[in-house]
Amino acid sequence: MRIDQGNLPALSLGCTVFAGGGGGDPRIGELMAMEAIRELGPVEVKPLDAFGDDDLIMPCGMIGAPTVMVEKIPNGAEGRVIREAYERQFGRPVAAVMPFEMGGINGVLPVAWAAYAGLPLLDGDFMGRAFPELQMLTPHLYGIPGSPAVITDERLQTVVFNTRDNIWLEKLVRNCVASLGGSACGGLYPMTVGQARRPIIPGTVSRAVRMGEAIRRGGEEPIDSIAQVAPVIRLGQGKVVDIERRTSGGFVRGSALVEGLGADKGRLFRLEFQNENLVVLEDGEPLATVPDIITLLDMHTGHGIVTEGTRYGQRIEIVAFPSPPVWTTAEGLAAVGPRAFGYDFDFVSVVDRYA
Amino acid sequence: MRIDQGNLPALSLGCTVFAGGGGGDPRIGELMAMEAIRELGPVEVKPLDAFGDDDLIMPCGMIGAPTVMVEKIPNGAEGRVIREAYERQFGRPVAAVMPFEMGGINGVLPVAWAAYAGLPLLDGDFMGRAFPELQMLTPHLYGIPGSPAVITDERLQTVVFNTRDNIWLEKLVRNCVASLGGSACGGLYPMTVGQARRPIIPGTVSRAVRMGEAIRRGGEEPIDSIAQVAPVIRLGQGKVVDIERRTSGGFVRGSALVEGLGADKGRLFRLEFQNENLVVLEDGEPLATVPDIITLLDMHTGHGIVTEGTRYGQRIEIVAFPSPPVWTTAEGLAAVGPRAFGYDFDFVSVVDRYA
Repeated sequence: MRIDQGNLPALSLGCTVFAGGGGGDPRIGELMAMEAIRELGPVEVKPLDAFGDDDLIMPCGMIGAPTVMVEKIPNGAEGRVIREAYERQFGRPVAAVMPFEMGGINGVLPVAWAAYAGLPLLDGDFMGRAFPELQMLTPHLYGIPGSPAVITDERLQTVVFNTRDNIWLEKLVRNCVASLGGSACGGLYPMTVGQARRPIIPGTVSRAVRMGEAIRRGGEEPIDSIAQVAPVIRLGQGKVVDIERRTSGGFVRGSALVEGLGADKGRLFRLEFQNENLVVLEDGEPLATVPDIITLLDMHTGHGIVTEGTRYGQRIEIVAFPSPPVWTTAEGLAAVGPRAFGYDFDFVSVVDRYA
Repeated sequence: MRIDQGNLPALSLGCTVFAGGGGGDPRIGELMAMEAIRELGPVEVKPLDAFGDDDLIMPCGMIGAPTVMVEKIPNGAEGRVIREAYERQFGRPVAAVMPFEMGGINGVLPVAWAAYAGLPLLDGDFMGRAFPELQMLTPHLYGIPGSPAVITDERLQTVVFNTRDNIWLEKLVRNCVASLGGSACGGLYPMTVGQARRPIIPGTVSRAVRMGEAIRRGGEEPIDSIAQVAPVIRLGQGKVVDIERRTSGGFVRGSALVEGLGADKGRLFRLEFQNENLVVLEDGEPLATVPDIITLLDMHTGHGIVTEGTRYGQRIEIVAFPSPPVWTTAEGLAAVGPRAFGYDFDFVSVVDRYA
């Protein structure tokens, strides 16, 4: 497949559904990708098998607080700067651009970078959703280093990190991103196609396009349409009655309260997030938790609502999608389960909980 | 000349005199250099003219809070890691190691790194003393970038910075050093011998050795002996009666109170420092300010006392040395004069003040 002016808006819509509320508002990324495609033509989307084992992959996206990303606009040339830094490091050309997470702006910005580089986009990512920290990518589970990581900002300054492990990488990159104003662009976990076979979550770009197309033809019942593309679990519908956000240290953290409407009248839902939605609680008990994907959908349009876009009065449907299987192993839950975010309860899949 | 087991202690002693209280306690650096010389032989010290115009210089040292450096011991291999990073960046070998500042540990640690690299030490530096920030090196006055800068820690992690200007470099490196625990090793302002002709302050390594030798033979009157090597101005003698230090963000800031003794009985001196001594005040009026070099000397031994080594009860002599001329130009004072550190008065040289 390819991403062109016709299906780019669908990719953008689909991204927010799988973002779990994070990954950043995709609109700026969509505009930049649209401009790049208009200028340079569509971007080819290819599966891993279309490449040679030694081909170099550049996983990339934005890093930092989504609340900052919406007003700290990328330069457009960050993808080139990251690519050049990697080509100097590895002494050979990058063969494919890849979104390191399939969510929000990070699902569409790499399309612009691929167009400008004249490179194909790899159909997959390293999260199958969005997560807030750098050790929360699948290669970390397989012992693959995130280094060398390249960070660049809208001034096209670069910082290249080679750390002892991915925890140090998260710490140093996060503080650097905070020094750069709270968000920046980056390349992480560069690797060959051969190395990527195990960690890749394949097909997530084309899945997001299919999801976006389903939402666009969904009409009055968008969630029924979404259910035709992915196993969606409805947790409740209601109105946002409170939202609290604080941006610091390269993250946005906070919570939202949702008062039930319709069949859910009388219920009160509490969402807690760190860039992405971490848990949805009712009476202090979890209804769903990471790594399952918890997303707020606009009740009428089915569009995903990012955490920085949540507002008082929005009529929303709280839905969950089952986590990619890699995250529900013991190693996966150690990295991204509720306890990794400081919660004192274990993960129970929405599939088991509501089956 | 060369640095061997015989004159290394003199270099170390001389460094603290010209450090203006900063640059870090030299003892760990001296031990590491002694070990390296014992193992690999003396280090040649050569003037700029001994090299070809295209030869690559590696200016290096420690960056961060001296209070941290005394207990966060370098690994020993940092110099190799910095050199390798530069050789990858520039695609050719480093020809000479150079202390980026001639003060404290930063005057002696590069001796160890030169010994391990089998390289000569350049006789000069980019400060002619010690200063706390990265835009306070002479190349900044000539528009030479501090990038690419290489930071490494005792785990031998590396971070390579390419920034838009030297102010951004200071900001990003400082925050990275803070993330690494408050001190780290680094290479800054890499350049060729040809580029270094204007910014270099020549002969500062051999001057520090001569100063240290003078102190060692000074006996009961070390300051008279110091005066034979450099124009020293005595500002007052006394006892340290109060010392206040706070370490944060990769700096140590604070002040010391000194009560006059002997001929200075009844006087009260206040020193204020940011890594290095910035001003000495009496009754709110400056007696001496940056960029002149303000140093506390042990009254009996003539040894320089670093800001993190200042203790209640020490009997000291407060002395000043005239600043290297490069810092007393309009551009120099804009970078390192009292106003650059937030003081609301102009620089008056100790030479003019006490001539």
